[in-house]
Amino acid sequence: MVAYDGTDFAGSQLQPRQRTVQGELERAIAIMTGHPTRIRASGRTDAGVHALGQVVAFDSAREIPLKGFFLGINRSLPDDLRVQRVAYCPLGYDPRFDALAKTYRYLAQTGEAQNPLTRFRAYQLNRLWSLDVGAMRAAARLLTGTHDYRAFRQADDIRENTQRTLHSIEVGEAFAGDPSTISIEVRGTAFMKNMVRILAGTLLDVGRGKLALASVPAMLGQQAERLHSGHTAPAHGLTLVSVELGRKGQPSPFSGATYPAR
Amino acid sequence: MVAYDGTDFAGSQLQPRQRTVQGELERAIAIMTGHPTRIRASGRTDAGVHALGQVVAFDSAREIPLKGFFLGINRSLPDDLRVQRVAYCPLGYDPRFDALAKTYRYLAQTGEAQNPLTRFRAYQLNRLWSLDVGAMRAAARLLTGTHDYRAFRQADDIRENTQRTLHSIEVGEAFAGDPSTISIEVRGTAFMKNMVRILAGTLLDVGRGKLALASVPAMLGQQAERLHSGHTAPAHGLTLVSVELGRKGQPSPFSGATYPAR
Repeated sequence: MVAYDGTDFAGSQLQPRQRTVQGELERAIAIMTGHPTRIRASGRTDAGVHALGQVVAFDSAREIPLKGFFLGINRSLPDDLRVQRVAYCPLGYDPRFDALAKTYRYLAQTGEAQNPLTRFRAYQLNRLWSLDVGAMRAAARLLTGTHDYRAFRQADDIRENTQRTLHSIEVGEAFAGDPSTISIEVRGTAFMKNMVRILAGTLLDVGRGKLALASVPAMLGQQAERLHSGHTAPAHGLTLVSVELGRKGQPSPFSGATYPAR
Repeated sequence: MVAYDGTDFAGSQLQPRQRTVQGELERAIAIMTGHPTRIRASGRTDAGVHALGQVVAFDSAREIPLKGFFLGINRSLPDDLRVQRVAYCPLGYDPRFDALAKTYRYLAQTGEAQNPLTRFRAYQLNRLWSLDVGAMRAAARLLTGTHDYRAFRQADDIRENTQRTLHSIEVGEAFAGDPSTISIEVRGTAFMKNMVRILAGTLLDVGRGKLALASVPAMLGQQAERLHSGHTAPAHGLTLVSVELGRKGQPSPFSGATYPAR
């Protein structure tokens, strides 16, 4: 399980001549194992997107003690990337095909002036927007459930199956006692390209009155199109909070021995 | 009222050949007024310390409309410094001598690995510390009130009057629903050099069992010395949250017309 500040990464996935999460992890893992390694992640995150609980797996014939691996790799990683927990997994284990659910958090900063302390973590909203959080919560309830979410994917995405289940969408305060930073937390089975950012943009468009609450139901279903939903909120407001594993009927690798212990 | 991310500033106060909050503000104010200006702040903050509601004042013969000044100056400031609210004040007004109370927040990050997302905002605690938040809260109650706080100032500070009043010290969660980042919020009449950082270090030393709760009362009073209290927590965990004005019996400049309106 790894956490990263996405600000200075060109995304999570390996790209030639770019600084990526995968590149930094593979470099540090190779120091620990003594051999080149490819990692498999639960999914990719775009440039600027952060993570608290991204899951990655790799294979090695070496059996390195969990604690030693955890302490050693965190000494080899840059400040903006840290392994949070380690566990053994079966050879070939791919967290992408074992994810039961994922939770993302989107932060939006209200106010007439930008907040320097959240500028890399939260979408700094237009100073003229005044948000109706009650309307956002009502829209969030309508967008929860099992639906065809084809209106909530990047326009050039052509996958066939666009049905997904969103277990919950919660709109609240990001920081205890401070209503100026709004948190939109989404938990669901799986997500399409830009889905959370379009969900966040849609809720913010409802909150500022640009989209009517009555228009939300038509955003779901096979007839819906991308132009019915709201704008795509920028990447730097998004954080992958956690990934729940165990889809294959096998228990999650993290349900056994881990370092640190749970 | 200004907010800043202290990470890339050599403190708030002007220093030759260093990037400071005062230097950046005076440069931007001069663009708005057309003449060189000196600002007066409610107090200084050290390198790395952040602010959400620092108060600064300056004099100008020009009467610039509040909204125009607010929008214009924020266009001239760097990303890590933003004016949050503006108001007119009497010529020569000095917020330092008009502060009734200040509120500071100190953030401490627990966990076996560092959290890349809080690395510039929170003190990343030693991974082996396990904190007793109940003991920290009990110590916070003991340290509240009107006392001689001479044990809570930098050792080379020689001022005579070391009596201060701390209205409240609250220990809680910084981020809603996430117990891993601890917030210590202190509200008091006035603070000595490093006082909040020593208060935070002391509470953390009590929390991890290095200092006994029973040793806290002896940290207060004229007999107490710096070596009785805890360590000085690092600067980057500290944020000046707000300054309450109006000590001179006159209402705060922000109680009249402001932009944005309150």
